[in-house]
Parts: sequence; structure tokens; C-alpha cells
Amino acid sequence: MAFDIINYLRVKRELVDRELDMLLPDGDKNQARLRESMRYSVLAGGKRLRPILALAAGEAVGADPEKVLPAACALEMIHTYSLIHDDLPSMDDDSLRRGIPTNHKVFGESTAILAGDALLTDAFGMLVAEGLRRGVSAGVLCGVVSDIARAAGSHGMIEGQAIDLALAGTKDATITDVERMHALKTGAMIRVSVMAGARIGGADENQLEKLASYADAVGLAFQIIDDVLDVEGEGDIGKERGNDERRGKSTYPGLAGLEESKRIASELTHRAVGMLDGFDHRAEALRQIALYLGSRNH
Amino acid sequence: MAFDIINYLRVKRELVDRELDMLLPDGDKNQARLRESMRYSVLAGGKRLRPILALAAGEAVGADPEKVLPAACALEMIHTYSLIHDDLPSMDDDSLRRGIPTNHKVFGESTAILAGDALLTDAFGMLVAEGLRRGVSAGVLCGVVSDIARAAGSHGMIEGQAIDLALAGTKDATITDVERMHALKTGAMIRVSVMAGARIGGADENQLEKLASYADAVGLAFQIIDDVLDVEGEGDIGKERGNDERRGKSTYPGLAGLEESKRIASELTHRAVGMLDGFDHRAEALRQIALYLGSRNH
Repeated sequence: MAFDIINYLRVKRELVDRELDMLLPDGDKNQARLRESMRYSVLAGGKRLRPILALAAGEAVGADPEKVLPAACALEMIHTYSLIHDDLPSMDDDSLRRGIPTNHKVFGESTAILAGDALLTDAFGMLVAEGLRRGVSAGVLCGVVSDIARAAGSHGMIEGQAIDLALAGTKDATITDVERMHALKTGAMIRVSVMAGARIGGADENQLEKLASYADAVGLAFQIIDDVLDVEGEGDIGKERGNDERRGKSTYPGLAGLEESKRIASELTHRAVGMLDGFDHRAEALRQIALYLGSRNH
Repeated sequence: MAFDIINYLRVKRELVDRELDMLLPDGDKNQARLRESMRYSVLAGGKRLRPILALAAGEAVGADPEKVLPAACALEMIHTYSLIHDDLPSMDDDSLRRGIPTNHKVFGESTAILAGDALLTDAFGMLVAEGLRRGVSAGVLCGVVSDIARAAGSHGMIEGQAIDLALAGTKDATITDVERMHALKTGAMIRVSVMAGARIGGADENQLEKLASYADAVGLAFQIIDDVLDVEGEGDIGKERGNDERRGKSTYPGLAGLEESKRIASELTHRAVGMLDGFDHRAEALRQIALYLGSRNH
């Protein structure tokens, strides 16, 4: 029977959405505005790529999905905080995200900053508290916290955003600069999503190594395709098109050309799938996710 | 022999400063500005109250200070991130902090936001990685991460800041509102500092309960005295005086009067010291810290 990737993604997305809704309850009146702002951005939809990768990686090594879910949701909360802060007037100054007004446009700048801070902070606490409650060992949780903090912190996603802001002002960025920026800004969190699911599922060192290479290839392909879609995408991509070019951002298509960018993305997709050769049928979702992301047009 | 609290605070402060300097190395050229910005605010001095409370609480139950230091430094990194973000133009819009220009005045708003984000994220990762390396058990570290995230997150410090911003616009704040705001904005992190040190030192439930009450009393006294010093403090308090009144912030002295505020702070100090009755001579530092903070004039 053929694997129905569209259905798989929908089912997992709904699972993650339900869990996030439950993990982020409304506050009492004193904190109503802060919590409303947190919920606004987290529950605005989105592909839920990071949590789904965590769940699929766990699946590939036989993890109990209930045990992976807290980490999966923490990854989405951290991703959402980074979007809220990236959209701020002093950063990318975006007014539209996931098809709706950005957080600071609705709640104001100070609440948007605090909502981002709170999602980041709460993500770590929830991951540990819920993880322990569901029987993940303290040792594994410490590894996951440490990995996620490294991927999201000053040597990972935040460094990537700092480089992105710096590159926006220059004309002489190279393809190496752009790859490095993507690897840090997007790739590190995609890699750690796969690793978190695999670790919670008890993957061995050899499996972790293969999955890290899988994630790196998928992450870069994903970002290249994002850049390509910013130029020529069809339909609604949930944000303003042509943003990158208007801001003078250095992109893959801008530096390597559109066709060459697509060729590289396709090569990366096949490399990712190849990394799963040693895994059994339980890795089918990871295979299909790579192929799906490699061919998406929105 | 009398306990020399001034010397104790200096020695511990220097210990924490050295450790923070080591834990936050300069970056390579790609991340030079981000890391410079992080180091600028973390190494700008400050009383190091939270890390010293963690060390002193550990001491009170016989902890190895080397094992408490990572948590102590994580608490200071989180405190510093909160100061950087609170000072931003869209928040308190402050230009002076710890006697020097605020982070965004020197590095710009976007770098200041990222530096704060990075300090918060790195704090969790460092706490876990360094803690494990120094032999703190994964179980204890999970408890500390969870406690700190709760104290700093949307039910703690960040909620306090949200309430503070909301109260700044109102004329009808009550003393209960102001106490609640302080308990969340400052008190929760002071409490968790004491608890983290005690947990790492292996404190039992009874000791943790007493130390929590100690911390709550010290935390509120500390904040009341801060408000008092904003009105009548001597010498350099490292920030602009009269800020609270100018912004129409609701303060203890504004609501209860200056003398009554001092009386309450003194009562809280004695309550804090009383909580340490069941502890031996190793709790002397905690006793002296409460008395010192209760009588400080800068």
C-alpha cells in the first residue's frame, strides 16, 4: 500500500495543534493579554515541520509518540518565538506571517517581545516537566535540553539571525556565507528536531549520525526551496512575496541562479533519502517527508 | 569571629564574575558583535545577588560550590537578559543601567534583542552541560531547569513584567497589585536562586520549604528597598533616580508611604532570618545576606 504523505502530515499536524492548544491554556485576567499573544502566534497554523520531523524520527526507531510530543511542541514554541522576534520592526519589520498580521502588529511591540521570551522560556520548562511525567528518563531529557539550547542559542539559530541581518546590508555575500547563515538560522533547529525524536526513541550512535546527515540535507533543501518560492512560488505562501529581493537579502537563486538552485535542492533530497538506507519500514515517513519537501510548490 | 559580609559578597562576586567571563568567550569574527553585546551586559558588574544567593543556599546544606556555579551563572545570565529586554525602547526605554549605557544604546535594538534571547537560551544549555560535567545528577538538573523556567517564564518573571507595563498606565493600582507584580517580576527568580542552590546541595523537603519562605521575604524586602532608594537613595545607584515617579509607576513608597515601607522591609528581613533557625553555622551567609540587604543604602 502506498504511503499517503499528505494524510500523514495532516494527522500529525492536527496532533501537534491539539497538544499545543492544551499546553498553552488561556491565562487568568492578569495575564490575559500576554497569553493571548502567545497563543495567537503558536496556534496560527504553520506546517509544524519541526515537530513532525521529531515525531517521524522517533517513529523510525520505534519511539512512543506520547514521549516525543513534549519535545516536538517545545521545538514549535521555540520556532514560533524566533518568528515573532524576527518580524519585529527593528529586525525584519514584517507585517504578515502565516497569512495573518504579525504579533507586534496586533499586540504591540512590548507584548510581542515578551510573548517570544515566554515561549522560549516555557518551552524548556514544559519539555522537562512533561517529559518526566511521561516517563522519558532525566538523562535523555538533559541531552535534549542541551542539544536544543545549543541549536537555538548564540552558536545556532540566533547567530544565524545575526548573520542574516548583517548580510542584508552587504552586496558581496558569497554562496558560502548564505549556506552558513541557513545552516545556523534554519538548519540547526531542523537537525535538532530529528535528533530529539531519535534520542527519545533510543537511537544508537550510528543511527544518530545517519539521521543528522539526513536532517542537514533536508534542512538546506528546505531553505533553498523557500528562497525559490519567494521568487516564483504559486498561490498563498502566507507572507509577502519578493520580500528577499526588495530587502537586498542574499539568496540562493540570487547567487546561483534559479535552475541551479532547483538542481541542488533535488540532489540534497536524494542524499537525504539515501541516508535512510539502513533503516526499516518505520523510516518510511522520514523518506516521504524529504521527497515531499523537495517537490513542494508552496 | 564576626562574619565579614562585605568580604563574603566581594569574594563570591569575583568568583561569579570569573566564571561568567570564562563561560562567555569572545566569538570568531562572524559572531563578534552578538557576543560582544552579550558580554557587555553580563560583565557590566552588578551585585550578583541571584548567583550569590544560590551559592549561599548551597553552602547552608553543604553543597560543593563548583557544582552550584553553573546554575548560579545561568541565573545571572537570565537576569541580565531580562534587564536588556526591559530597557528596550518599547519597554521601559532606559538609557542607563549598572552605571553604563544600556545595551541597545550601544549595539542597537536588533542586536540587544538577540543578545537577550541568546543569554536566555544559552543559560539553559550551559546549566545542563556544565552541571553534568561537574557531577550534578540528571534528575536534579531536570528539577532545576523546570524550576528556573517556571520562575522566569509566563507564570513568573515575564508575567511580572507584563503586569508592570500594564500598571504603569493606571492610577488605581493597589498595594496588592504592586506586591503581586514584585513577587512575579523579582521574587520568583530570587526564590528559585535559593532553591536551585539548595537542591543541588541535596536539601530535604523541610529545608526547601524554610528556604523558600526565607527567599520570599528577602525578595520582597529587596524590592521595597529598591523603590525606597529610587526616591531617597544616596550616591550612585547605577541608573537614573526618580525614574519610577517620572513614569507614574506604582511603588511601595508611593502607596504605603516612605516610613511604612521601611518598617515593612525591616519586618520582612527579620522574618527571613527567623526561617533559618533550624539551620547550623553553615547558614550564616544566608543570615548575613538578609541583614545586609535589609540595611543597604545603594
